[in-house]
Amino acid sequence: MSKPSLPKGVRDFGVSVMAKREFIFATIKSVYQKYGFSPIETPAIENLNVLTGKYGDEGDQLIFKILNSGDFLSDIRTQNTNVLNEDLKKILPLISEKALRYDLTVPFARFVAMNRNDIIFPFKRYQIQPVWRADRPQKGRYREFYQCDADVVGTDSLICEAEIVLMVQEVLENLGINDVLIKINNRKILTGIAEVIGAEGKEATICVAIDKLDKIGEEAVIKELLERGISQNSVDRLLPILKIDGSNEGKLAALEIALASSEIGKQGIDELKKVFSYTLAFSSEVSQLQIDISLARGLSYYTGAIFEVKAMGVQIGSISGGGRYDNLTGLFGLDGVSGVGISFGVDRVFDVMTELNLFPASTENATKVMVTNFDSTSELVSLGVLAALRKANIASEIYLKSEKLKKQFGYADSKKIPYVLVIGEEEIKTGEFALKNMQSGEQKKLNLQQLIEALHEV
Amino acid sequence: MSKPSLPKGVRDFGVSVMAKREFIFATIKSVYQKYGFSPIETPAIENLNVLTGKYGDEGDQLIFKILNSGDFLSDIRTQNTNVLNEDLKKILPLISEKALRYDLTVPFARFVAMNRNDIIFPFKRYQIQPVWRADRPQKGRYREFYQCDADVVGTDSLICEAEIVLMVQEVLENLGINDVLIKINNRKILTGIAEVIGAEGKEATICVAIDKLDKIGEEAVIKELLERGISQNSVDRLLPILKIDGSNEGKLAALEIALASSEIGKQGIDELKKVFSYTLAFSSEVSQLQIDISLARGLSYYTGAIFEVKAMGVQIGSISGGGRYDNLTGLFGLDGVSGVGISFGVDRVFDVMTELNLFPASTENATKVMVTNFDSTSELVSLGVLAALRKANIASEIYLKSEKLKKQFGYADSKKIPYVLVIGEEEIKTGEFALKNMQSGEQKKLNLQQLIEALHEV
Repeated sequence: MSKPSLPKGVRDFGVSVMAKREFIFATIKSVYQKYGFSPIETPAIENLNVLTGKYGDEGDQLIFKILNSGDFLSDIRTQNTNVLNEDLKKILPLISEKALRYDLTVPFARFVAMNRNDIIFPFKRYQIQPVWRADRPQKGRYREFYQCDADVVGTDSLICEAEIVLMVQEVLENLGINDVLIKINNRKILTGIAEVIGAEGKEATICVAIDKLDKIGEEAVIKELLERGISQNSVDRLLPILKIDGSNEGKLAALEIALASSEIGKQGIDELKKVFSYTLAFSSEVSQLQIDISLARGLSYYTGAIFEVKAMGVQIGSISGGGRYDNLTGLFGLDGVSGVGISFGVDRVFDVMTELNLFPASTENATKVMVTNFDSTSELVSLGVLAALRKANIASEIYLKSEKLKKQFGYADSKKIPYVLVIGEEEIKTGEFALKNMQSGEQKKLNLQQLIEALHEV
Repeated sequence: MSKPSLPKGVRDFGVSVMAKREFIFATIKSVYQKYGFSPIETPAIENLNVLTGKYGDEGDQLIFKILNSGDFLSDIRTQNTNVLNEDLKKILPLISEKALRYDLTVPFARFVAMNRNDIIFPFKRYQIQPVWRADRPQKGRYREFYQCDADVVGTDSLICEAEIVLMVQEVLENLGINDVLIKINNRKILTGIAEVIGAEGKEATICVAIDKLDKIGEEAVIKELLERGISQNSVDRLLPILKIDGSNEGKLAALEIALASSEIGKQGIDELKKVFSYTLAFSSEVSQLQIDISLARGLSYYTGAIFEVKAMGVQIGSISGGGRYDNLTGLFGLDGVSGVGISFGVDRVFDVMTELNLFPASTENATKVMVTNFDSTSELVSLGVLAALRKANIASEIYLKSEKLKKQFGYADSKKIPYVLVIGEEEIKTGEFALKNMQSGEQKKLNLQQLIEALHEV
C-alpha cells in the first residue's frame, strides 16, 4: 500500500475549485477567440537545449529536468565518469536531455521558428497550458501553474497593442473584475531615459532597479542603482523623470520635454500616443489605461510596449502582464518577427475573484436536476425520464440506489443540485412528476413536456 | 542560437489540428456534464512512490522520472555511492523522487483516498488531461497524449454501467461516429469460465491470452495458454465457450448453461442482464451493445463489467474502453470503494474522424469576419466597427496594416475567414459597408445594424 501524498507546490483541483477555474478559462478563451486568436498547444516535454539559456542562470536552475528513460547511466558508464568528482553542469547533460516547459513564450517561439513556412502571418495565437518551475513553494507560488497567453507575431502594427488593452478590459469585465488599472510603458522610453541621464545602454540595469520601486521604495532603488554602477549624477537626473505625474496627456507632454534629445525616446512616446489613439478609436472608455514610466517588468526581451494589470481594492500583485518583443524567434534562427503578447495568471485572478466574491453561483454544479430512485419498478421509469431530460439537453442524474428519500434529498442538497424530481408510484400512475426547488422548497406537479419547459427556463 | 527541435514522440498542435481536437474535447465534456459528471484535475507531477508498482514492471520502466531539483547528486555524495557499481534501481531513488503522470486512474485513486472526507459519494468525476509514457514512439503511439476519463466511485449500482453505454453512444453520435460497436463483458464471467474449465484462479492468465484472440488468432492463443500452464483438458473445454455466438440473448442463454456450476459466473451473467435491462429502460436503441465473451482488456484491476468500443468501417483499434474495479483506492489504504469508468483515446477518435471525414467545416476558423484596413483615416473607423461587432459577440479581426486590398483578401482567404468587410472612403461617407462572402463571392452593402444581424444569422 502506498501512502497517498502530493509533491510540494503542486495541487489537485477538486470539483468546486475546478468549476471556478473553468469559468475563468472559458471566459478568457471566448474573449481571445472573439478577437481573432486561435489556440495552439505545445508539448509539456521540450528538449533541454531549447529551454536552457533563455531564462537567465536563475531560471535554468528552476527548470524541471527529466531523467533519460531506460538506462539513464549509460552515458556515464560509456565515459567512465566519476560522478562524485564532477560538478552538476557536467553530469546533467549525461543523464537528462529533456525538460518540462517553463513558460509558454519560449515554446511558442520554437513553434513559430519550426513552422515558419506553414504559418500565415500575422499569426494570432493563444495558448492555455500549465508550466512547471522548481521554485521554492510559498503562498501563491506553485511549482505547476497555468499560463493563459495571447500573442500576435509577424507584425509591428500598434493596433495589436490597442487590441490587447481592449481584450484585457473585456476579459476582466466578463469576470466581474471592473475596477482595474492597466499600466502601460514602452521600453524605448526607458532606453531614452538611460540616454538622457548619461547612462546610455544601461537601461537593463536601470529597469531591474526601478522595477522594484513599488516594492522596496525610492531609497533602496537609489542604493541599488549606485551599487550597479549608475553614477550619482545619472541617478540625480533619473529621479525627477520617474516622478513625472498627472494625466496620460500630462505625462506624455512632460516626457516629450525630458526626452527631447533622444531619438529612441521620442519614438517610444510616438508609439504610446498611437496606441492611445487606436484604443480611443475602439472605445471611449479607456480610463483604466495609465502610463507608468517606472514599469519595466524585469524581462529583458521587451522592446516596445510593456503592460501590467492590477485589480484595485485587493492586496494581490499584478494579474496580467505582457509587452512587445522584436526578436523572440531570433533565439531559434528566425529574425525579423516582431510580436506582442499578454498573459493572465489564473491563480491570481482566482484569488482576486474569491476575495471580491465574484464567482457566479451557477459555477457550483453543472447538474440541474436529480431524479429520485424509489424502488426497482419506479427506477426503470426514472431512467426513461432521465433519458428524455438529457435528450432535451438538461444536465441531470439519477440517485443510483433505491434508498430512503431523505438520504436522496440529502445527497442533492450537499451537491447543491438545484432541483429534485420525485418519481414514485403515484407519479407514475398520473404521469405527473413532482419537481422540487431545493432552495425555495416549492414543489410543482408537471408532466414530462411541462417539466422540460420548466427546466429549460431556469 | 538554439536549433529548434521537438523530442521524439511528442507533438505541437497547430491551429487547424487544435480546432479539431477542441471540437472532440468540447463534445466529450458536454456529454459527460449532461450525465452529471464534474471535472477535476490532478498535477502532472506525482511522487514517484505513488506511481511505481501500479502498472507492472514494464509500466514502471515507462514512467518518466524527474531529476531532483537543485543538487541532484547530494544523496549520492552523502552516501558516497559509486554510481558505476550499482544497478539502476538502487540509484534511481537517490536522484529522483517525482515522476510524470502515467495515466489518470491511479492519480484519481490517490485523489479519492486523500480527499475521502470531503468527497460526496457516489462521486462522478471526469478528467481530461495529458499523460506521459516513455514508450518507443511509433505510428499512433505517442509519449504525450490526452486521456478523457469519466468514473463513478462509491457505488456498485449497475445503473452506472448502463449510463456509460448511453454516454459513449451519445459522445460518438455527437461526433458523427454513428457506426460503432460497444463490446461488453464481465470479469466474473471470465472467472466463472476459469472455474468450469478446471483452471480455477487462473483467469488472469487466461485473460491475457484470450485478449489477443483478435490479433494473433486461435492457434497462437492455444499455444500461449498451454505454455502458461493451462492444461490441454482445460483448453479443450475453454474453446467451445469462446465460440458461443449469436444474439446477446442467445449468448446469455448459452452462458447460463456453460456456467451453471459456477456461483461467480452466474453472478456475472445476472449483472450483464441487469445492465441490459437498465440500458433498455434508458433507450430502445441499444443495438450497438454486444456481449463479447473474449473481451478482457488485459488490465487486471477490472472486477465487473468490461467495455471496449470500436468504430466500424475503419482499420483503427478501440477508441474507448473501461470497466468496473472494486478496489482501486485500496492501493492507497481506502477499501470498499467500488467504481466504474470509461476512457476515450482522443488520438484514435481524431484518426477515425479524419478517415471518415467527419469534422464539421466550422471547426476550421473561429473568426467570422475580417475588417479591411484602407488607410490611416479609414483604419480608425474600422476599429470602431470592429468594436461594435465584438460587442455583438461576433468573432472578428482587422487586417493589421494598410496594404493592397488584394493582399488583405489573400490573408482572409488563406485563413479561411468566411467574410470580409470592406470599409473605404465611399463606405464611410454612406455608412454602408460592403460585406463579401468569401466562398460565393457575393457582396452586400449593409449598415452597421444590418451587418450585425446578417452575421448573427450565418
